[in-house]
Formats: sequence, structure tokens, C-alpha cells
Amino acid sequence: MIVVLGAGHTKSDCEAVVRKIEDAGLRSQVVEGVERTIVGVVGDSHTKELLREGLEVMNGVESVVRILQPYKLVSREFHGGKDTTVWVRDVAIGGGRVVVMAGPCSVETRDQVLQTARAVKLAGAQLLRGGAFKPRTSPYSFQGLEEEALKILAEARDETGLPVVTEAMDNRQLDLVVKYADMIQLGARNMQNYTLLRDAGQTGHPVMLKRGPSATIEEMLLAAEYIMAEGNPNVVLCERGIRTFETYTRFTLDLNAVPVLKRLSHLPVIVDPSQGTGKWNLVTPMARAAVAAGADGLLVEVHPEPDKALSDGPQQLTPQNFAVLMQELDAIALAVGRRV
Amino acid sequence: MIVVLGAGHTKSDCEAVVRKIEDAGLRSQVVEGVERTIVGVVGDSHTKELLREGLEVMNGVESVVRILQPYKLVSREFHGGKDTTVWVRDVAIGGGRVVVMAGPCSVETRDQVLQTARAVKLAGAQLLRGGAFKPRTSPYSFQGLEEEALKILAEARDETGLPVVTEAMDNRQLDLVVKYADMIQLGARNMQNYTLLRDAGQTGHPVMLKRGPSATIEEMLLAAEYIMAEGNPNVVLCERGIRTFETYTRFTLDLNAVPVLKRLSHLPVIVDPSQGTGKWNLVTPMARAAVAAGADGLLVEVHPEPDKALSDGPQQLTPQNFAVLMQELDAIALAVGRRV
Amino acid sequence: MIVVLGAGHTKSDCEAVVRKIEDAGLRSQVVEGVERTIVGVVGDSHTKELLREGLEVMNGVESVVRILQPYKLVSREFHGGKDTTVWVRDVAIGGGRVVVMAGPCSVETRDQVLQTARAVKLAGAQLLRGGAFKPRTSPYSFQGLEEEALKILAEARDETGLPVVTEAMDNRQLDLVVKYADMIQLGARNMQNYTLLRDAGQTGHPVMLKRGPSATIEEMLLAAEYIMAEGNPNVVLCERGIRTFETYTRFTLDLNAVPVLKRLSHLPVIVDPSQGTGKWNLVTPMARAAVAAGADGLLVEVHPEPDKALSDGPQQLTPQNFAVLMQELDAIALAVGRRV
Amino acid sequence: MIVVLGAGHTKSDCEAVVRKIEDAGLRSQVVEGVERTIVGVVGDSHTKELLREGLEVMNGVESVVRILQPYKLVSREFHGGKDTTVWVRDVAIGGGRVVVMAGPCSVETRDQVLQTARAVKLAGAQLLRGGAFKPRTSPYSFQGLEEEALKILAEARDETGLPVVTEAMDNRQLDLVVKYADMIQLGARNMQNYTLLRDAGQTGHPVMLKRGPSATIEEMLLAAEYIMAEGNPNVVLCERGIRTFETYTRFTLDLNAVPVLKRLSHLPVIVDPSQGTGKWNLVTPMARAAVAAGADGLLVEVHPEPDKALSDGPQQLTPQNFAVLMQELDAIALAVGRRV
Repeated sequence: MIVVLGAGHTKSDCEAVVRKIEDAGLRSQVVEGVERTIVGVVGDSHTKELLREGLEVMNGVESVVRILQPYKLVSREFHGGKDTTVWVRDVAIGGGRVVVMAGPCSVETRDQVLQTARAVKLAGAQLLRGGAFKPRTSPYSFQGLEEEALKILAEARDETGLPVVTEAMDNRQLDLVVKYADMIQLGARNMQNYTLLRDAGQTGHPVMLKRGPSATIEEMLLAAEYIMAEGNPNVVLCERGIRTFETYTRFTLDLNAVPVLKRLSHLPVIVDPSQGTGKWNLVTPMARAAVAAGADGLLVEVHPEPDKALSDGPQQLTPQNFAVLMQELDAIALAVGRRV
Repeated sequence: MIVVLGAGHTKSDCEAVVRKIEDAGLRSQVVEGVERTIVGVVGDSHTKELLREGLEVMNGVESVVRILQPYKLVSREFHGGKDTTVWVRDVAIGGGRVVVMAGPCSVETRDQVLQTARAVKLAGAQLLRGGAFKPRTSPYSFQGLEEEALKILAEARDETGLPVVTEAMDNRQLDLVVKYADMIQLGARNMQNYTLLRDAGQTGHPVMLKRGPSATIEEMLLAAEYIMAEGNPNVVLCERGIRTFETYTRFTLDLNAVPVLKRLSHLPVIVDPSQGTGKWNLVTPMARAAVAAGADGLLVEVHPEPDKALSDGPQQLTPQNFAVLMQELDAIALAVGRRV
Repeated sequence: MIVVLGAGHTKSDCEAVVRKIEDAGLRSQVVEGVERTIVGVVGDSHTKELLREGLEVMNGVESVVRILQPYKLVSREFHGGKDTTVWVRDVAIGGGRVVVMAGPCSVETRDQVLQTARAVKLAGAQLLRGGAFKPRTSPYSFQGLEEEALKILAEARDETGLPVVTEAMDNRQLDLVVKYADMIQLGARNMQNYTLLRDAGQTGHPVMLKRGPSATIEEMLLAAEYIMAEGNPNVVLCERGIRTFETYTRFTLDLNAVPVLKRLSHLPVIVDPSQGTGKWNLVTPMARAAVAAGADGLLVEVHPEPDKALSDGPQQLTPQNFAVLMQELDAIALAVGRRV
Repeated sequence: MIVVLGAGHTKSDCEAVVRKIEDAGLRSQVVEGVERTIVGVVGDSHTKELLREGLEVMNGVESVVRILQPYKLVSREFHGGKDTTVWVRDVAIGGGRVVVMAGPCSVETRDQVLQTARAVKLAGAQLLRGGAFKPRTSPYSFQGLEEEALKILAEARDETGLPVVTEAMDNRQLDLVVKYADMIQLGARNMQNYTLLRDAGQTGHPVMLKRGPSATIEEMLLAAEYIMAEGNPNVVLCERGIRTFETYTRFTLDLNAVPVLKRLSHLPVIVDPSQGTGKWNLVTPMARAAVAAGADGLLVEVHPEPDKALSDGPQQLTPQNFAVLMQELDAIALAVGRRV
């Protein structure tokens, strides 16, 4: 951490800063520049963090610059540079294979889910996704079938063998999701719902954490840190589109996040081109691009009849289009030394 | 609602759209243009909303344009054009007076809170604010004193008579906040936490809803609609800064939201220049500007010793600076025909 | 400037960094932390800037942090903390009075301009604005009357005594604007048109520089630095709305920019609520708020018949509404110790 | 185009709207809804565009919704759905091959350029890029060697046979660029510099138009429309990163733009992962992803000694890394049925 003293600071301003740093048990080192003075702060990072804002308001101080990343458990550096593999039942996320999770945006009927599950399994998907609790912008939109949906998903898993991933939005839903499903999805709007992150951490269940639509990479890693800090190492990061000025697509899928997250963290990274673009005809090119950028997996929405879907029809693939996508992905995965 | 059929659509595409609309019990009217055909959809807005995405994926359809605002209870139009006043104990928010809520970002000690409460009361504040549960980006930052903080706030209210507003982040915290405090704050990161919005709606307690840092005005009004749809009309809207590319300030306080929200909704609108700028020396000019723009109130962070604050020190005013602010506000309020 | 060496850097990485710094004639000072090493760089800021990116790509280097602001001539610090007043003929911008510039978005006819000029003069405006060259998103929109418009504006000045401000978009237009008008407007889309900034600097004419819709404050100040670096000190900064996610307004007028620019720079700061909001009924509340935030002036679009305007009708005030606005501004200006 | 009359409009408001539409020679059709009335406007799109803002300010009108895209010459629909190929000397952009343009950010010395040109030619690049005029945020940064640089580039072309692409920032530079180079680059900051777009259109020379960092897709296509409207069909679109909240990368390369631009327009689309990310170690994964998303080409910065570069060193590849990239691209190109 570095404290910058601005033009016009006095010698006693600088001494007060040094005293505050040393009173907290940290070491300081002063570098006098032509127009500014900087004070390097050395020592325990937790102590530095607690001191930071207090230094920022002292007389003569222009800014306080953080040098270290504020996260630990999720960082690649802390993990010895190695990749983590997260297991969801017998499926490994983060290994050599590109894992595809597929299924409908919302669970609507038993038939819809079973039919979709069989189709995506046949095409090569390894997990089944489907929404039981739906976060909707309007209170008047379809909000999900709740526990009934979870039962249907569990039945589809029992028939096809595909582990199930589904979203929970609060502690009460979390209990139900852990009971029926194999992986908890924490949605984009809840990426900074800290009590939910902690609760999910305490379950020990695998968690797929979606990036908030205007979150930075650092904020996403800090959200994952909340889960890991509760002792749960089974976290998969999911890029699902950020909000930008573009209105043609629903969000802007940010594929830069894939190589950046892989550099900064050891956790597996998957990509959701369905939510990320909001348009089914962009799903295939962006899914191909995601694998080429190094993604460990994909989350793809598939619905037997998208025009009758109760939510997000425009972004769901038909089972036929999904099968074509899976073949195209295979060629790309081979080109980057992986397999689907 | 309007369905736009693009270049190259066939007559039977158009007929299928009309059939789908009429099968749902709505009326349609076709307008044939030079290059496009548009189909106006008339009837119950709820039915239209459910049909919207299904129409969007039909053959030949280029887009579906929503004409009506998707919210109702919060809209000025629905409320006969009149303003709503929300009462928090004996304080009216949304009437002729500009209401100032003040107090520390976080409750740290009994002394700190009592001292601040007395000072802000003396300077003219009408509500006491203070955080018991703190949403922090990092799991390693100070997270609040929880129930102990709520007890301290209640004691300060009992001594000064200032009603208390404080944040709840989930249903368990909500029970405690309702027990001890007079107004629930729903924070920016929870603006789209739909189960929390519903739970807060069911309490019937006054709610201050903060705008999410990248939420649009429409999304904010839909969040308020969630609360009101549970039968709770006591909602105050709070602008607290949006995320932009600017890095000099922590957020960009969006004062345009004040006149826009007042036009679209009947609910009171207050402004938080402390969170909104993140710098104490910008609080006063932006507070003045907020009142000039028509705000019904302000939320201002005050701490007896900002350099020792456990959270957000750089944006908190000293009691002395707060007293000066209150005097300056008075002059502005008079200039727009109100009083502080 | 500070060079941060990351985890895993070697002693010789650090030595190479120090050598590169000293070879450039700068001094260095090494601070060894627990996990990182930082190297403070002391000396001439221009040399540091040229060295910066070269240091960033060296082995072991994690980042290079700039401590000094990259601008000089525009900075308040460099100017001894005093405000600058820019004179446009006999009108002082940046003194005690709030200066209002008013007139139509585009010059359309002689009558329209003369009628507007008389009306805004009567209501208290001090400069006349009107567009001769119009930057339009579509090549098929009205592009301005060019030199003919400049002649009309000059005639209106000669009759009313109001100095004229109008936009130039390239060097050829600049020659014409300098010939006929009293102040050059550099528009938001040209804020980073560096050859134009230089050309405008060389004229010595007063310049009003509008902030780009997604420019940061620092980028805006660097653009002003381009003009001043050519020897032209007559620069007025204009906040005119930034692009955000909000779609209800055309842009988001950023009033935070007013106190921030006044802190960082000595140049006068004005605000354009017409462009900034795109809606005439938001112009008055935002103009009031701008003055309350400390703006030195306003730019307001006025058109005798907004529904017949060839550009931006929805954001132009009628002369009647403009007169009301001027009265309301007076009350606010008095409340902050100024006059309109 | 559709005019929406809001709640509370009167019958005579609607009649006035219809009259204004028909007076302009257009047809109207009224659709009465439950709470709103909409008026469809049919006829010549240019007339509609000129009428649009005038309708927006009429009594009772809530909004005016544009149905047609505002661009024509650049649209795929207008071009019969076929792709365009742009020839730069003997190199075809937009055909079956993925075209790579490579070279240094800035031309610094004759040696640097010749050495780079030979290396990138050997590795398979088809065009040489290099900056002679550099748009820099600060007036104190290196601004380019100007005409001397153009002569060096021309010499490198003569030796290697690689056509040259380089940026012009105003009409004076344009004359020089057309004299020495084979393709004009219009940079991101000039995407809405309308006089420059027109001037470039009039040259007839091939133009590479870079997307502005906060431009929407529609604005980019309108900028290309300006060039084509002057009779120059040789336009290549280049995605080069948009500004988002992320600070780890310099910009956020938006690969969604590739399939979206290919759907909406017939023009070739290339991607610049060097500018788009600002970090050399992200160039390779993002270049792979761009080709997988369907890009027709790439623009890659290559410098023999990035740590000594006078601009943008951190984002330039060494010739060795560039050669590796070219091999990896080949595998991806084959997977999507193309060749590099």
C-alpha cells in the first residue's frame, strides 16, 4: 500500500501519516519526489486494509493506492499456479474436457424437462440446467414452479444420469436446492448478495457463480472469495454478459473475462452465451468463440418449443440447433487441444 | 404492444402472428408499410406481456415493441397525478419540507451513535441513519455490529426522538430491523433481490429503496412495484449514484433521476450525496444541487471522527461540516419554495 | 511514479528496473514488501511518462502506477489555486455572475435567429449560441446552413450586442468561425480530435470545450491541455451529459463534474442541460441544480417554435419558458452568493 | 414510424398528429388501445425522419418509435443479402481467407519497420500496418513521425509487397495518406468525425473504420453510411474494444459485434485484439476467439522490442509470438471452414 502526499503537504502531515502506520504495527518507508511524497506501507495486508480509509482522510494525503489484490483464496498465485477441478457428481469441470450444461431457462412441465434432458444428453451435454426460482424484473412475469420444478429436475437426473444445476435466490430456496440438485447457481443479480454467498459457502455444495452485469473482474473474484472463506472450495465462475450501451443484444458477452479470470484465479471458468446475448442466433458463434478463448465449459439454454417458453424464449435453442452446435464445438475444441 | 414484421416476411407469417394474438384473447390491427408491416396489439397488458417473447421468435418477426410502461402501482398516471407522502413515525417524507436523514455509515460504538444523533438533531436532521449490517465488497472488511447496533440505534431514537432507518440484507435481518427500527433501507446491491423486496413488502413497514448502481429508472420503478404489489404503499425512492467510467468519484450521483422519478412516479424521492460521490468535500455542493433539482430529502453520512471510521470514512462529514451544510440547504430550499 | 514487482520476481528483475530508471536520468528508491517490491521513481515527469510503458513490459513487473496528474497548464495547483476569467468581448465567464448562453440548436432562418436573439437578450442572456455546422449521427439529417448561418449570427450580434458562440468541426470550418463569431465551440464528439484542438489553440480565440459523452474528467482536462499548450489560455469547460445505461433521457447530465472540475482546474465551468437531458421539461430543474452545484454559466437551447425545429426540437425551450427559467435561476444564484 | 399518444390525450391531439403526418405527404393509420393510441406512419423514410422530432413535441404525444433502421447503403438487406469483398491492391478482405494486418503501433525508425515487415510477411500477414500520425490522450506523448513515417511504410511495401494501412486524423493528413498508403484507417476517436468521414468517402480509397469505444453498432453503421454516401463502397469495419467498467484490460474487446455486424451489414468485419485488450498476453486467446466468431480478419500490433516502443508497448507482440499466433489461428480457421 502506498500513501501519496500531495502538493502543499507539510512535514508534520507526513510525520502524522508515518506515526499512524507504525502505531498499527506496520512499517513505513518515505520516498520524496519533486512534487509529491510517497509513503510505502509494508506488513500484514489485513491490517493495511483496515487502515486504508483512515489514511485517506488525513491532512495532506492525496490518495492511497492499493498494490496487492484484495482476494486470496481464489487467486492463482495463492494456489501455487495450478488449476482447480470442481466435481459435480461424476462430472469434472476444469479438466481437459469442455463441459456443456444445457436445458430450459425455466422448468415449465415434466414433459418439457424430460424431453429436453434426453435430447441434450444425446447431443453430448454433461449437466442439466433448468430454473425453478426465476428472478424477473417485473413482479407480474412468470416466477417459476419452485419446489415442484426441483422434483421434476431430480426425476430427469435419475432417468438420464445428468447432474442438475439450478438457481437459489435466498436462504430458504438454498435449503431446497441443496436437497434436490447437485450444483447451486448464484445468479448475476445476486453476485453481491453477501449473506447468500456466505450461506452457499456453508453448504459445501458445488456453486456456479455468475458475474453481475456491471461487476468488474475483481468484484467477481471477491464474491467467490466470500464463498471460499466459508470453507467451500467448489466454485465455478461463469461469465454471462455485461451491461453496455449496445441495445441490439440484451447484454454484451465479455469473452475477455475468460483469459483474464484464468490468469488471476485457479477456478474453472464457463460461459453462458444464451443469457449473454439474448438472441438464439448469436449463441453458436459466441459459444465457438468462448471455447477458442479457453473456456472450461458452456451453459446453453435449450427448449423444445422456444416460441411457447414462459421466459426468455428468444434466447433458447431448439434441440436440433443444439445438436448442430455441439458438433461445431468439437472442431473448435480440438483446435485448442481439448475435447467436448 | 406492436409487432414489427421485417423485410421478406410472407403473408402467412403475418397471418400466423394475428392468429396467435387473437387466440390469446387480444385484438390486432395490421398497418402495412413500404418495407415493414406492423401489427398493433390491443387488450389486457398482463396477457400482452406473457405473449411478448413468444411473438418475438415467430417467423418473419423483426421485433416486438412495448408501448405501455410495465409498472402500475408506482406510476404517477395510475395514482391520479398526485404526490404520495410516506410517514415514518411523525416525520412526513414527500410533503413541503425537505427531510434530512443523517448519521454514521456504520454503527461502531454506543458513544459514537449517541454523540452523532444529538449533533444531527441539533443541526436540524429529522431521521437517524446508521448501518448495523454492512454489505462489503470484501469478506475481510468490517461487517457491522448486527443486533447490538440495532439496540444502540433504538436507544438513540428514544433519547432524541429521531426515527431510525437502517439496512436489511435478507429475511432474517429483516425481522430484526422491523423489531428495532422505523424504516427499512434496501441497499443498492439488493435493488433486484426479488425475494427480499417481497419480504419487505409484506412487513408493511416504511421502506427506503436505493437505486442499483447500474439500474435504469424503469428497473428501479419495477423494484418498487414488487414492494407495493405486496400491499405496502410506504416506499421512498433514493438516488445514490450510478457506476460510470469516471474514477475520480466513487459513483456518479445522477440528479437527473430526481425530476424524472417525480414525473413518472408519485413516490417521494431522496438523494444520498455521501455514497453517491464517495468524497466528503463533494457532499455539500451535490446536496445543494439535489434540493434545487426538487429532491424531497437527503441522506447524509456524519461521523464524529471520519479518520477513525470503520467504513467509508472519506465520505462522512464531521458534525461541524454537517451543521454548515444544513444552513446552506435552507437558502436553496427557500429559493425553490420549500423549507428544510 | 511507482513500479510494482509482483510475486515471483527475482533480484535481477528488480536490478534491471532500477538500471532502466537510472539510465534515463531519474532516481529510484526500492521498498521491499512482504509479497511485492515497489520502486519509487523520482524526477522529471515528462521523462517518467515516456518511460512508463517500457517499464510495464519488463520481466517481473506487475504494474506501473502514475502518481502525478498528467496535465499541467489546466491544473488549479499549477495556477496557484486561483480562478481564471475568460473574456468573450465584454462578457466575463468565471467571475461572480452566472453567464447564460442561449439560442437555437441550429440556425434555420434569419427571422428565427433575430427573433430568438432579441427574446433571450430581453430575458437576461449574455451570449447568443446557434449551430452553423451540425454534427449529425445520420448523413441524411439536416447538416446546417454553414457560412450563411454564420452571417446571420453576426447580424444578430450586431443588432443585440450579444457575442456569438458556434461550433467548428474541422480546420476549414474553424477559419470561418473565427471570422464571424466570438467564441469557438468544440463539440462533444470532437473532444479528442487532437488536430482540431491544436488548431483551435493556435487561433487564440476563446474556446468552449464540451466534454465527450464517455470521457473521464482527466481526459477532458488533457483535451483542454492540448489547447492551452498551443498558447491559448481562453478555455471554458462545458459539461453536457455523459452516456449511461439510462434510456429515458438522451444523456445523463453529470453535475458532479462541476465541483470536481472546479477543484482540479482553474478554468470556468459551464453546463448544458438541453443537450444533457434531451428533454425540454428537464432543462429547468437541471439548470437550477447546476447553479446550486457551482456552475459559472449555462448553455440553453431556445427556439421560437420547437415543433418545427430542424434539429433537436424536443430539447429546446420556447422564449416564454426561457424567461421563466431565468427568473428561477436568479433565486438560486442568490442562495449561493452569485447573480445571473 | 409509430407515434404513441399517452394517457389523457384528447381526440384533437390525435387529429393534429394525423394532420401533420398527412400534410407532409405521408399516410397514417390510427390504432386505439385501452390506455394509449398509436398512429402508424407510412411512406418515404427520409420524410419520416425529418418529421420525427417535430411530432415528438406535440401535445399528447408520449413517444415516437422508429421502426426502420436509419442506414441503407451499409445494410445487408439493401445489398440483397450478399457479402462484399474489399480489395486493397491484390488482397481481398471479406472472402474465404482470414486476412491478418500486422506491424508496429507507431513507425519509429526505418529499421524497426523493415525488420517488422519482413517478419510478419514471413509469418503470413497480408497487410502492413503502422502509425504515422498518432492520436494521443496527452499533448506531451509521442505524436508520430508524420510524412517521414509514410515514406518508410511505402518503402517497406515496395520491398515486401504488403499493402500499407495507416491512420489519418484530418483532411490534411488524408491527402498524405492517400499519396503513400493503400488503405486509410479512421481511428476510434474519429468514428463520429463527420467531415473526416465525408472526406475519406470522397477519396474512393479503401477505408478501415474503427468502432468508437462507446459507440453502438447502429452508430458505427451510420458512420460507415457517411463514407458510402459519398460514393465509396470500399469500407471495412473494425471492432477494437469498447469502454466498460473493467479496469484490468484497457478496453473490452466486443466479439458479439462480429456476428451482429455480419447479420446487419454486407461489409467485411475485422478485429483488433491489441488495442481491444491493451495486453499482449491476451492478444492470442482473443485473436483465436475472433476467428471462431466469424471475423474476416485481424489487426495485430507487432514490434521487434516492445519494451522500447514509443507507444503502446504493453500490447505489442514480438515477431516470435506473432509467428506462434499465426499457426494457432490456422487451426481455428480450419475449424470454421476458412484459411488464414
